[in-house]
This record gives sequence, structure tokens and C-alpha cells, in this order.
Amino acid sequence: MNRTDDLKKWKLAVEETMQELIESSDMPTRLRDAMSYSLEAGGKRIRPALVYAVLETYGIAIERGREVASTLEMVHTYSLIHDDLPAMDDDDLRRGRLTNHRQFDEATAILAGDALLTDAFRILSEANLPAEAIVEIIRAFGLAAGSAGMVGGQLDDMLAEKRDDVTLQELQSIHERKTGALLVYALEAGSILADVSKEDRLQLKQFGRHLGIAFQIQDDILDVIGDEQAIGKRVGSDEENEKTTYPKLLGLDGAKRALDAEVDAATFAIQSLSVQAPLLVDLLTFVVKRNY
Amino acid sequence: MNRTDDLKKWKLAVEETMQELIESSDMPTRLRDAMSYSLEAGGKRIRPALVYAVLETYGIAIERGREVASTLEMVHTYSLIHDDLPAMDDDDLRRGRLTNHRQFDEATAILAGDALLTDAFRILSEANLPAEAIVEIIRAFGLAAGSAGMVGGQLDDMLAEKRDDVTLQELQSIHERKTGALLVYALEAGSILADVSKEDRLQLKQFGRHLGIAFQIQDDILDVIGDEQAIGKRVGSDEENEKTTYPKLLGLDGAKRALDAEVDAATFAIQSLSVQAPLLVDLLTFVVKRNY
Repeated sequence: MNRTDDLKKWKLAVEETMQELIESSDMPTRLRDAMSYSLEAGGKRIRPALVYAVLETYGIAIERGREVASTLEMVHTYSLIHDDLPAMDDDDLRRGRLTNHRQFDEATAILAGDALLTDAFRILSEANLPAEAIVEIIRAFGLAAGSAGMVGGQLDDMLAEKRDDVTLQELQSIHERKTGALLVYALEAGSILADVSKEDRLQLKQFGRHLGIAFQIQDDILDVIGDEQAIGKRVGSDEENEKTTYPKLLGLDGAKRALDAEVDAATFAIQSLSVQAPLLVDLLTFVVKRNY
Repeated sequence: MNRTDDLKKWKLAVEETMQELIESSDMPTRLRDAMSYSLEAGGKRIRPALVYAVLETYGIAIERGREVASTLEMVHTYSLIHDDLPAMDDDDLRRGRLTNHRQFDEATAILAGDALLTDAFRILSEANLPAEAIVEIIRAFGLAAGSAGMVGGQLDDMLAEKRDDVTLQELQSIHERKTGALLVYALEAGSILADVSKEDRLQLKQFGRHLGIAFQIQDDILDVIGDEQAIGKRVGSDEENEKTTYPKLLGLDGAKRALDAEVDAATFAIQSLSVQAPLLVDLLTFVVKRNY
């Protein structure tokens, strides 16, 4: 089976599970519609894929990651809904469809995000896993998504947008929390589910960290040289918005070299594992070779 | 010790703990300021008090409820921050101070709410309790606060505000989710922490349910006949906003009779417990006799 087939299989698995989970909770129709609308909006589903890839790497059925993978995508989705709000990035479109608050209204979008976040923790607590594993996963998830992680990174990102003297170190710190933390969590949660050794868990998290930075650099590069058709949004918006990016701080060639360095570091982490992990190599390649 | 002293002691305990918990997380200063601002805004702290009261009723040190009580107030606070937003109730003042988005800005208020909610689950996962108890508590919390509980109730409340044909049954269903669910959860979490019998747990939840309805009826009554000075906000706003309330549906006397019926039912639940529970009687009296 090749990389694209795996991704498709995992994408289907997580989309089906999310649908089931939302259907099984008793809630107002409008709330369910708003939550489903954004969950169904597609995307690469890279975070669930990382969980499933770790499980398959260690010979464990991906069903064990059912709740972890779905709730990861739910929390990622809530963050997109809130980021798109008028008070935040004020976006009308995401992946070619109306954003949640444009399709419904602002209040509904805020509540749909709140519900996705809250229900995610409830769903994790209901997973068919040992209680100790659930607690460990919820702790890692909360750290990655909360004030010290994603939400803190988002706030610092907003503050940085008003400044033109953002350093490379600050840029990295923002990305490590805003997008990196959930990616590292995907690897960590996979490690807990697969009950891997301490050493492998450390390497998997290192892999996640470098993958995350590579992901962001590639995003920035695509905004300079990408194909609008493939990406599904206008390129050049970072420069127009005077956003601090890797190409802006390092130049396009410098950004490409930084990307290569992250890929090398991520590859080294994979090679340091106690097992062969071709699926993780494939995911890394997918992230840096993608044109969308 | 009388009721007022207990309430003061519990209020102090939960406020100190919340402060410690927020200080101990590494986050952007502005985010911490915004979270602290609303956590420090005061209030009756009735939810933590219910947790502590159950523990004391069963002879257990209130320290065991440290995380449960604090995170309950954190989640209540996040819900107030989001409810006050321009897209929702659009309130400038709460308890005589500027609302979060007026003191900071809308984006910060949204993120402060998101962080309070996310960090609450993380803090619960770190409690010094058996993993099974933590998982059970997180599940109950998520059910009470999520799509089937508080968030769903808030959405239905918004939809109901546009209608003038809301029935008593609908009104009750909205309140049971929007405010009641977290109150029932306070009793349920206390029951789990105190490891009470199944029968007592059921009675405690019944008590919470009737207390919650009584709380809401008293709120509605105070908006008709309350003292503005004591409440800290203008009375009569429900009628102006053409809001469906208990006095509107039942008349003032009818609402008072409904309140009495809820108090009787709550009292009956307390009397059905295997232990004497004067603290719960006191809290019930406080809720229905309060003038703010």
C-alpha cells in the first residue's frame, strides 16, 4: 500500500468516526449542523494520520486510536472556527467554502467551537482504554491545546502581527505553540496508545517537533511560490499583510535550507527509533513535498 | 460555624487555588491577565461551595476537591466571558466592572475563554486522585458543559429569545442545560470525590437539579422585585427584552409557588440521604433567600 492509499484510508476512518460521535450526542440541531459543517470541510487530516501511523508502525490496530484521532481533529477544527471569527482573522472563506460564522452566525460559530472543544475531552474520557492512559492523554492534550500551547501561541501571533521586528526565535516560539504543539501531541498520544519505550517516545516527539516546523516553513514557502489552484487560496497574502514569515526573515533560499535542516532532523529521529517506520517517512515526505 | 462563614471560607479557598493554578502555567502575560481579570471578578462561587459542602457533609477534607472546585469555577467563568461577547449578549458590564472584551478586546476575550476551558480539563487530569475517579469526573464535566449541556442550552436560549411562544417545558429544558447542568455536576463530582453510595449520589443529583431550577426562578423573581443596589444591575431588563421568564409564564405569585415546590423537592432529597446534611440545607436557603 502506498502513502496516498494510507492517507485516504485514515482520512476516511477519522471522518466516519467524527460523524458517528457527533450523531451520538443529544444536542440542538443547529449546533450539530454547525459542528458537522466544519468537521466535514475536509483538509489533509494530517494530525489523525500521525496517530494512526504510529499505531501501524508498532503493529497495533488503528481502532485503538479512534477517540484520540477524532478528538484531535475536533480540537483542530474548533481552533480554525474561532481563528476565522471577525474579531480574529476575519476570514470569509476556508477551503473554498464559507467560514462557520458566515454560513451560520458569529454566536453559533463561537458555541460550535466551544462544544467541539468540550465534547473532545468528554469523548476521550469514554475511550475503551485503561484509565491511567486516558488521564495521561488528556493531560498531554490539554497542555498542547491550552494556555501554554495552542491558545497562547495564537494570542502571541496576534500580538506579533502588529509588529515589524519579530525575530526568528519569536516566530519559532509562536509556531511551536500555535501549530506545533498539537502535532507533537499527535505523536505523544500515539506513543501512549502504542505503549512504546521512553526512548522511542522521545524520538517520536522530536520527529513531531521538526515535522511541525517543516510544515510551517513549507506553508510560508507555498505562499510565495505556490499554485493558487492547488492551495485553494490566493498566494502572496503574507507579504501583503506584512506578516513575518521564514522567507521574509531568511530569504526564499534561506527558508528552503531551513526546511532541509528540519527534514534531516526529523529523519534522524525516525532512524533512531527501535523499529523501522516507513509510514512516518512517507508522512514527512508528504508534508514537505505537498503543493497545497 | 454558620452559613456565611462557610461560604466565605470556601470562596477564599477556591479563589486562592485558581490564582495558584493560573500562576503555575507558562503563558503570554496578556492571556494570564485576561484570565485572571475574570476569575477575580468575584461572584457567589456557589458551584465550588456545593462541591466543598458535599465533602464536608461526608467528613472529607475540602482539599480533596481542590481541582474539581477550581475548574468548575473556571469553566463557569469562561462561559460568562463568551456569553458577554458582542455576538452573544453584548454586555459591557458584569458585576459593576467592564466585561472581558471591553477591558481587553474581543479576540483576547475569546482566547481567554478557550484557555480557561482547555486548562480546566488539563488541571483535572493532574489532580491527586485515582485515575478512575479522574476519568469519571472528566466525563461528567464534559457532559454537563458541552453540546448536550451548557453550550447546547446557551444556543437554545439564543434561539428562544427571538420567539414569543416559548413554553414552560422549553424554558425548563433551557435552564436545566444552560445553568442547571453545571450545578448538578457540582453535586455529582462531590459524590465521586466522597465516594458516596449509589443511592446518596442519586439524591444529591436530585437536590442539585431542584436547587438549579430554584436558583433560576429566584433570579427571574429578583429581576421583577429585586433591589438594584444589591443585585448590582438594573432590574426589569427581562421584561424590557421580552424575555420568557417564570414570572412571565406563571405570574409573580405562580413563580413564587413554583419556587416553593422546588425548595420542597430539594429538601426532600436532602432528607433522603444516609447522613445529616445541614450544610446543603444552608446552601439551599442561601440560594432562595438571597437578594442578589
